[in-house]
Parts: sequence; C-alpha cells; structure tokens
Amino acid sequence: MSIFKLVGKKNKARLGKLKTLHGEIETPFFMSIATSGFIKGLTTDEMREIKAPVILSNTYHLMLRPGEKLIKKAGGLHKFMNWRGPILTDSGGYQVFSLAKFRKISDSGVKFKSGIDGKEYFLTPKKAIEVQQDLGSDIMMVLDECVENPASYSVAVEAVERTTRWAKVCKEVKSQKEKVKSDKLKVKKQLLFGIVQGSLYKDLRKKSAEDLIKIDFDGYAIGGLAVGEGKSEMYKMVEYAAQLLPENKPRYLMGVGYPEDIVKAVSLGVDMFDCVIPTRNARHGMLFTDLKNINLKKGIVKYKALHIANEKYKEDFKPIDKNCDCELCRNYSRSYLRHLFMSKSFLGQRLATLHNLRFYIKLMNEIRALLK
Amino acid sequence: MSIFKLVGKKNKARLGKLKTLHGEIETPFFMSIATSGFIKGLTTDEMREIKAPVILSNTYHLMLRPGEKLIKKAGGLHKFMNWRGPILTDSGGYQVFSLAKFRKISDSGVKFKSGIDGKEYFLTPKKAIEVQQDLGSDIMMVLDECVENPASYSVAVEAVERTTRWAKVCKEVKSQKEKVKSDKLKVKKQLLFGIVQGSLYKDLRKKSAEDLIKIDFDGYAIGGLAVGEGKSEMYKMVEYAAQLLPENKPRYLMGVGYPEDIVKAVSLGVDMFDCVIPTRNARHGMLFTDLKNINLKKGIVKYKALHIANEKYKEDFKPIDKNCDCELCRNYSRSYLRHLFMSKSFLGQRLATLHNLRFYIKLMNEIRALLK
Repeated sequence: MSIFKLVGKKNKARLGKLKTLHGEIETPFFMSIATSGFIKGLTTDEMREIKAPVILSNTYHLMLRPGEKLIKKAGGLHKFMNWRGPILTDSGGYQVFSLAKFRKISDSGVKFKSGIDGKEYFLTPKKAIEVQQDLGSDIMMVLDECVENPASYSVAVEAVERTTRWAKVCKEVKSQKEKVKSDKLKVKKQLLFGIVQGSLYKDLRKKSAEDLIKIDFDGYAIGGLAVGEGKSEMYKMVEYAAQLLPENKPRYLMGVGYPEDIVKAVSLGVDMFDCVIPTRNARHGMLFTDLKNINLKKGIVKYKALHIANEKYKEDFKPIDKNCDCELCRNYSRSYLRHLFMSKSFLGQRLATLHNLRFYIKLMNEIRALLK
Repeated sequence: MSIFKLVGKKNKARLGKLKTLHGEIETPFFMSIATSGFIKGLTTDEMREIKAPVILSNTYHLMLRPGEKLIKKAGGLHKFMNWRGPILTDSGGYQVFSLAKFRKISDSGVKFKSGIDGKEYFLTPKKAIEVQQDLGSDIMMVLDECVENPASYSVAVEAVERTTRWAKVCKEVKSQKEKVKSDKLKVKKQLLFGIVQGSLYKDLRKKSAEDLIKIDFDGYAIGGLAVGEGKSEMYKMVEYAAQLLPENKPRYLMGVGYPEDIVKAVSLGVDMFDCVIPTRNARHGMLFTDLKNINLKKGIVKYKALHIANEKYKEDFKPIDKNCDCELCRNYSRSYLRHLFMSKSFLGQRLATLHNLRFYIKLMNEIRALLK
C-alpha cells in the first residue's frame, strides 16, 4: 500500500495525498513551525481552527529542552502538545550546524554543546532516529550535513558523501527497530525521508539523489537551499533537483519560503514546505494580505505586505484583510492591531501570527484547488 | 428606575444587580484588568469564553496611547477593543500619582509628563470626565487624589478635601453634558462613581463619605487602600468605610486583591473588585488552583498557589487544576506548561492568564451562589 498517491498533475505541478500515522494530508502543503513543541503564541486549538493540516517540530530544540525522554513519558509529542494531526520532525542536523555553540564533526556524528546549559551532546545518525522515534513524529528526517552557500566543491562533495553514509545508517536503525516485535506497529508507520544535498553543483545533486533513491526512502527532501544563494540560483537548483526524484514519492523543499517561492516551487514539482517566515514576520508586525492571481504555469502570485507599525494605519479602522476569516480580521481593526504593537503587547504578535498562518493555509488551499 | 438593586443579603454580604449601558451585572463581581484596552495576552473572544462579566481599563494609559480622540473616532472603547460587555474606567488619578514621570498638583488639576514620549498633559476633573465620555465607558470614576499609606493626617486631610472638590466638578461636568441634547441619551446612561479617601483615619473616611453622598453618585468606591498598609488595617478600614455608604448603591473596593481579600471584603459588604493579581501573577508562573471552603460569615477561603517553574512539575502530566474548565486545564499538562515557561514562551503566560482569570470568575460565581 503506497503512502503517497499522485492524484493530479498540471505541467510539473503535482496534487497528491500523503498517508501518515495521524491522518492523510493533501499535497502540496505547508507546515507551520512549532520549533520547541509549540507555535510561538498560539494554542493547538487555534491551529485546528485555522485548519492547519500538519506542523513541524525541531528535534534539536526538543532534545535539549525538555528532552525526548520526558516527551516519550508524556506519551509522545502529539500528546505532550495536544496536537492530533501529523507532525514532521527534522533530524537536528541543520540546527547543530547553525545554532550549536561548539561543534566537532566526525564521520560518526556531531559533538556539540547546548546553548541552554552548556551540556555536551553527541548527535549520530542512530541517535537522530532514536530521538525522533521517542518523539513519535509521523515523518522523520535523516541526519544530514547542510553547508551554507556559496560552498567550495570539495566541501560540498564531503557533505554529500557524509549525508549518504548517515542516511544509510538512519534507514538501517529504522529497519532494525521495525524487527523488534513490541515496537513493530508504531515504528512501521513512522515515515523516513532522505535529504538531497549538493549545494549549487548539479553533478553533486544528481549523485546525492541517486544514492538516496537506492537506499529507498518514503520521501525525499531538497536541503541546503535558501542558505545564502540568490533566488534565481535557488529556483534553478529546485527545478534540477525535483526532476531527479521519483514521481511516486513526496518531495519536500526545506525551509522555503515566501508565497512566491512556494508557488514557484510547486510549479517545479515540489509537494511539501515549511518556513518561519509567516510566524517570524508576524512577530515583527508584517502581515500578508490580498492574495490573488496564483499562476502555477508561470509560478507567480500576487499579495501585499502590510507593515502595521506604519503611521498610516493609526486611524485605519478597516480589518487587516477584508477577505480573511481569522480571529484578527473578524474582530479587530488595523488601528487596534497597531495599538497592540505600539504597546509592545504580545497579543498583537499572537493575532498577527494567527493571521499569517491562516494566509499560508489559504495559499496552499488555493494552489491545490488550481490542481483539481 | 434604580441602577442598582439589592437582591439578597447574608449578614453584611450583599447580592445585587447593577444596570449599565452594556447590560446588567450581578454583584459581587470582579473586573479583569485591560489597562491599555487589552487584557495582556488574551483576546476578547477568550474573555467571553471564560464568561468575564465586565472589564476595567485605565484612562491614564489610554489617554497617553492611543489617545481618547482616536478611540472616539473608532466608535468608543467597546468597539475599538471588540468588547460588548460593560467597561469601568478609572479616572487616571491613581496612575498620575504612581506612574507619571513628573507631576505638579494644584487645586485645578495635575500637570504631568507622559512616560512614553515626554509630552505634557494637564489632567483636571473636567478633563477626566471628558476623556471617559470619549471612551464611552459604562462606569466612570471621579478624579481623586490617592495618597500612599502611611500618610500624615495633614496630607490625608488635604487629599480628602481635594477629592471632594474635584468630585463636585466631575458631577457638574457630567450634568452639563447631559443637558446637551445630541449627547443626552448616551451620557445619561454612563454611571459616575465617587471615591472615598481618608487613608487610615476614621474621621476622614467619615467626612469623605458624607461629602460624596451629598453630591450623590451612582456608586461609591473605597480608594486609598492596598497602598502600603497591612492587611488587618486594610480590613478594618474596609469594614468601617463600607457601613458609611448607602445600602442602595454599589460599593467598589479599588485594586484589591487576593481571593482571601475579596471574600473578606464581600463579607464586609463590598460589591465590586478589580486587581492585577490574577493576570500579573500568571505572567510570573503563579497559578491559582483548588478553590474550596468559601466562608462568607468568617470571610475566609481556601485555595492553592501553584508555581509552575518548580522542578516537581517537570514530569507531572496532570492538568493544572482537574476541576477547571479553561483551555489550559482541558488541553495541557503541568509538564507542558512548565516547558512553555522554561522556554520563555508567551504562550505559557497567555494560558496561565486565562486560567487565573477563570479562577477569579469562578470564585465570584461561588460567592454569589452562597448569597442566593
């Protein structure tokens, strides 16, 4: 029984269905970021209200605080955070490389110190899977090595080779676990995705994709993009990498992006997205509004960015977006939201976050509607 | 037609009904604090969900930001903040004395500088009423002079005399306004309360109450308590001041307090309360739980204070309060709330605030039930 079903296709853009332990999700979809087991400022009731289909949590953050063993005791991440829908967890690799205070990489894994209490950790491919099994996420990611762009060819080669070696270990650890009878049922249903690296080098992307496909994962991510390169370079590499991947498996572009990036990537054949932009920008008073003209053939979309601190909204008693059905737009004016931000109230950040996530969910709804 | 109706009485404790422009409220009641036109972290939808009957906003804060003229343009404070229930606004007096950067008091009013932008303001009794009329609150308070305890007799005398003079002006300004035909309907329905001062001097409390009763207000507040004196002194003065006030008018003890203070004051004949304790303590991770044994005869109550940062809650997967119906207690564990606080997430503060306000609302429900 296939976990991913391609339902429709227009040019390269794909409409599909992905089965997980916590329900089926229509692709393309966007995952809201619940880094440490919570969406900053929002409750899971609210996430259900805005019809968020799936969320993403960060293994690195949860491993450091409150710890995967505590979450396992709580009955898993879903129960701990009261989220009944699917959860994807990253492997912690990206955060170790970008956030950890001190790190030492070797072929067996990455040694690093916690930014919270200085405690030393050793993240190996095996450990990354074990932690994600403790969390009980629906979609696990392999431990990869992500390099910033621009990267020299030799650095990129090394990262690709290590990523492949680690991916093999991750798959083996999962397979071993599946043989343990008591864990069988649950472990089998957790999906595992490989991550294609290779920086901006086509031959390395090709090699990475081919190696991972041989190992055989439930889905494939395109990693190492939106990490320093320009947009046109990113789009070119997404286009190239997407066509390397099997038609019958979901494709996930990690950490991307603005609505135009998502529409573009969908038009290039990508199915899954996550990004901090809607939530982080909301906390800075930037709201997405007036979504229109999604064109999947050209890979473009129109919308407006409303900066609520702007003086011109001081006496603007209209809603943020008259076509939005979120709590902010239903109940409060631009003038009031501006007052909340000027007062440095976290209620303002909360309402803006809710609105932006609802915007992204509607964006994905409309993208899928165009593919039906 | 009387705006306040005494429905029942047990010893000194009173059950009543207060009519306002935005509906009738059963007394005794507690007003949640929406200082600058918002409850810190909560939406008005949530305030309705937890069945908050009435809120309090601060004239001083709203006058400085966003300004009463903006709120008037928005259609009044109710519309601006999307709150359909009653609102009481204080006069700004207390804040001018406790918060303003620079202040110069004279018989005509108080000159002070805004802590936000240094702008100079002149708050007079007339201005205090005009601002509250612009805000459109249901219950307005007179401008008073509140002194900290302990206060010398001469300082207390001066404050009482000035409070009476200013109270007269406030009443006159309101009466004048009521004669202006276009404003007639709305202005008439706004209630105006006098504020009894007199520090801890019985003779001054008596004089203050008698002077204010002569002016004739819709209700009477007991001010100048919980400002430095001990609890037993406060209770003594509440007991003394309450019996000075007319039976047929609501009595409001300003800025008090913990559940035990409220139960005590109800037992002494007080009908209305407001305090920052449930919201401020929530933001510091202190949660009220296990409400029981309200005794209005003795003026006592039992409950527990749960400090969520405590290590013992780390792996405590029980709800904060198993008898509570708030979103926090329905959906999340102590362990999870602790994780939110350890992560310095404002979601933790938000959920704790919701819980504590729900606790206070239930406290008042149970108090009223005992009076029925």
